[in-house]
Amino acid sequence: MLTKERIRCEKLRDRIISAEEAANIFKTGMVVGTSGFTPAGYPKAVPLALAKRADKGDKVEITLMTGASVGDELDGALSRAGVIKKRFPYQTNTSCRNSINNEEIEFSDIHLSHLPQWVKYGFIEKIDIALVEAIAITEEGGIIPSTSIGNANVYVQKADKVIVEINTSQPLGLESIHDIYSPENPPNRKPIPILKTGDRVGTSYIPCDPEKIVGIVITDIKDANKKLAAIDEDSRKMANNLIDFLEGEIRFGRLPENLLPLQSGVGSVANAVLGGLVDSNYENLTVYSEVLQDSVLDLIDCGKVNTASSTSLTLSEERLENFYNNIDQYKEKIILRPQEISNNPEVIRRLGIIAINTAIEVDLYGNVNSSNIMGSRLMNGIGGSGDFARNAYLSIFVTQTTAKNGNISCIVPMVSHCDHTEHDVQIIVTEQGVADLRGLSPKGRAKTIIENCATGEYKEMLKDYYNRALKCSKYKHTPHIIGEALSWHNRFLETGTMRINP
Amino acid sequence: MLTKERIRCEKLRDRIISAEEAANIFKTGMVVGTSGFTPAGYPKAVPLALAKRADKGDKVEITLMTGASVGDELDGALSRAGVIKKRFPYQTNTSCRNSINNEEIEFSDIHLSHLPQWVKYGFIEKIDIALVEAIAITEEGGIIPSTSIGNANVYVQKADKVIVEINTSQPLGLESIHDIYSPENPPNRKPIPILKTGDRVGTSYIPCDPEKIVGIVITDIKDANKKLAAIDEDSRKMANNLIDFLEGEIRFGRLPENLLPLQSGVGSVANAVLGGLVDSNYENLTVYSEVLQDSVLDLIDCGKVNTASSTSLTLSEERLENFYNNIDQYKEKIILRPQEISNNPEVIRRLGIIAINTAIEVDLYGNVNSSNIMGSRLMNGIGGSGDFARNAYLSIFVTQTTAKNGNISCIVPMVSHCDHTEHDVQIIVTEQGVADLRGLSPKGRAKTIIENCATGEYKEMLKDYYNRALKCSKYKHTPHIIGEALSWHNRFLETGTMRINP
Repeated sequence: MLTKERIRCEKLRDRIISAEEAANIFKTGMVVGTSGFTPAGYPKAVPLALAKRADKGDKVEITLMTGASVGDELDGALSRAGVIKKRFPYQTNTSCRNSINNEEIEFSDIHLSHLPQWVKYGFIEKIDIALVEAIAITEEGGIIPSTSIGNANVYVQKADKVIVEINTSQPLGLESIHDIYSPENPPNRKPIPILKTGDRVGTSYIPCDPEKIVGIVITDIKDANKKLAAIDEDSRKMANNLIDFLEGEIRFGRLPENLLPLQSGVGSVANAVLGGLVDSNYENLTVYSEVLQDSVLDLIDCGKVNTASSTSLTLSEERLENFYNNIDQYKEKIILRPQEISNNPEVIRRLGIIAINTAIEVDLYGNVNSSNIMGSRLMNGIGGSGDFARNAYLSIFVTQTTAKNGNISCIVPMVSHCDHTEHDVQIIVTEQGVADLRGLSPKGRAKTIIENCATGEYKEMLKDYYNRALKCSKYKHTPHIIGEALSWHNRFLETGTMRINP
Repeated sequence: MLTKERIRCEKLRDRIISAEEAANIFKTGMVVGTSGFTPAGYPKAVPLALAKRADKGDKVEITLMTGASVGDELDGALSRAGVIKKRFPYQTNTSCRNSINNEEIEFSDIHLSHLPQWVKYGFIEKIDIALVEAIAITEEGGIIPSTSIGNANVYVQKADKVIVEINTSQPLGLESIHDIYSPENPPNRKPIPILKTGDRVGTSYIPCDPEKIVGIVITDIKDANKKLAAIDEDSRKMANNLIDFLEGEIRFGRLPENLLPLQSGVGSVANAVLGGLVDSNYENLTVYSEVLQDSVLDLIDCGKVNTASSTSLTLSEERLENFYNNIDQYKEKIILRPQEISNNPEVIRRLGIIAINTAIEVDLYGNVNSSNIMGSRLMNGIGGSGDFARNAYLSIFVTQTTAKNGNISCIVPMVSHCDHTEHDVQIIVTEQGVADLRGLSPKGRAKTIIENCATGEYKEMLKDYYNRALKCSKYKHTPHIIGEALSWHNRFLETGTMRINP
């Protein structure tokens, strides 16, 4: 019965194998592309079996490509077992991150909308195996994804072999939430026909030649749902500052009453910022993002959000259960797309997205670091922030003014790594206030950021640096004291704090 | 007779005024948007008269927005006369540049595809006067531009008053080369219906309510055509390296035989690179760019280029004369668009542009500085390089390995300003060779850049920095010695050379 509902293509039913058998298909040197975007919709049983195989001494070293971050069964287990040698394009797993920063894994940090193209263009390693979590396989071999899509459609298209993990913990009710559309390569590409957040333009399954499916593994391991930190005082202040700013934009006629489609990055702060809208007066909001976190479901529940598009459902355990219980209602308002579409610059620019992403640090002139701490240590990666920020109607970055108990200032003279240049950053929001950088010169930006976003001793230090730079710098377009521009980071590396008199 | 052909709207014929009368319309504090993109198609007579007025002691301080760079009659004369107080979004004029670096002009350095949107969205200063060079005005008041469009259409749409400079040195034969299309603002924006380089989707004139036209000035001052430097040995080597790379891409099946539409930045190197294709075996090439320089006309002449789209014609004096003499033939192959369209991410991504832009400096990890020398001194601005690089099929940056007689290394440990992040830079070409960075980790990029693109003592210094960084850096994703990362720039500022033993 289960098999009939979940594997509707009769001739595929005899390809059911165990996770261990599936793990044996992987060989050293292979390039593996998996489903998964955030800890949602990623394969679990086969990676665990593969890690076990490696732990037993069987050497398997692979290149792993995903949608974005995935759960510990994939990134964690395989990193710890030494299976991952190269990793694309984003991760958030502690074991994986440590291996990247210890030279054990080569990590290539790519815009999330670029990777699917690059695979299709043949710019990077050819995919040997696509490993995809699904809720079911259709009569024709089409793969119906679960709680995320990511790049699964592209990996299935380009791989020699496909292994499907049918996950019975993911309800069949998810069927028809997905909308799979894959643009052709240039010179044959056509306009992506999405004009509104909720437009459906593709199929509800990933087309797949059934002959490519070499194994089907049945599992019931649940998504490792993220626990979001409780909304703290600073997050609440950032959310309020952001809402004040948006109110002003409406007043000045620069945003319609129901705003424009919202995008918000992954994590507690991003969740809190959207959560702040629950108590607002907005109506008929829309979301066009790469993730939907709890706050978006709250906004749907209270009638504020009409339509939400994304490539993954990143819900807490309770919220996911509630979602499943009311799946038919939610499906009317939620649509999951491949990340090539959720993060597509064409669509983002057309719809006019309000992009809200978090920064690790920003500098006086509005450059943003969102990947490398102290210039060297990979945190997560750029993810989709560049896809959205670069093409958004409004490109907003949020950050607290300090981190690590005040030992790090998140506003610095010069970023130690740049992921979003001054040209791509329009609005900076901290718990202190909002810096609206649109149309300002570098000096105007510096004054606004110091005045509106900084606080305490770091504010004084920033003023001091800026004033001295303006005086000393021979060229005064972007005043810097080049020998001192990164001294705050150097001080932190040497003393553990950016403070001068800790 | 001239008036009848050039001003076809009868009721506008009595609005002809002198350049001096037009100059008197400008008041301190006004925001002026002009036509012009490179020294082509910009207003000349009125700015010269305005500069004269200011030189006589009449205080007029304005904000000037253009398409991109313009000729000396506009940027130069008005900078020297102290008329420009704020400037958007790009410039290449010596006087203007000096004023920007001396704190006399506030300069806001914006992606060229962003400025038109920002004006339409109301994100920045409202336009008081649009000052536009034209070849003629249609029966309904439509303005037919000359050798460039830039943002003229947007300024005309948004300005309270419009002043037209009818330039009789620009032949009426230019009519119908232009294609004016202006996307609506979100949430009403539709797909831009361009599927091929040569598709015409708009009008051949800038629509304009004739009531807004407050003055028409007749002039015959010619475009200040750029002299391109003769193609030197290094440029030839870069061009050859680039062509070798493209050949490889065809061989590997990653590019079609006739490539994909080419974009090449402004200047001698960019011109030389495209010029290198004249002796190639390619056929049916297309160009989708922001400028067309001499080399593109050479490629059309020798039958290699079929269709070329841009927002300006930046030709040498001889080439422009030749162009005018054969204008009907060229018009079949050349199309001029507003920069909102020539530089549009949607179109660039769809068509699959091969973007070739020049870097001021690149660093070990593939970050590119294209605007601020030694972190502070504005050179020209980011221009359209970000529009193209970020959305291109192939994002290529070219640079010589050294500048200033070898006192500056154009490959440095860390860029002193970042305009294109590691995520947006795929290929680096120097006279030494090609670094293909696609899919590489930061360490892989560093090794490839040092090995393929650097030379001489700087190559040894880069190796030394990288090896020590890899050893010392606690976190090894992007190895840096943060206290030394900008030391080469500091040494240059202090001693006049980046060399250790000059």
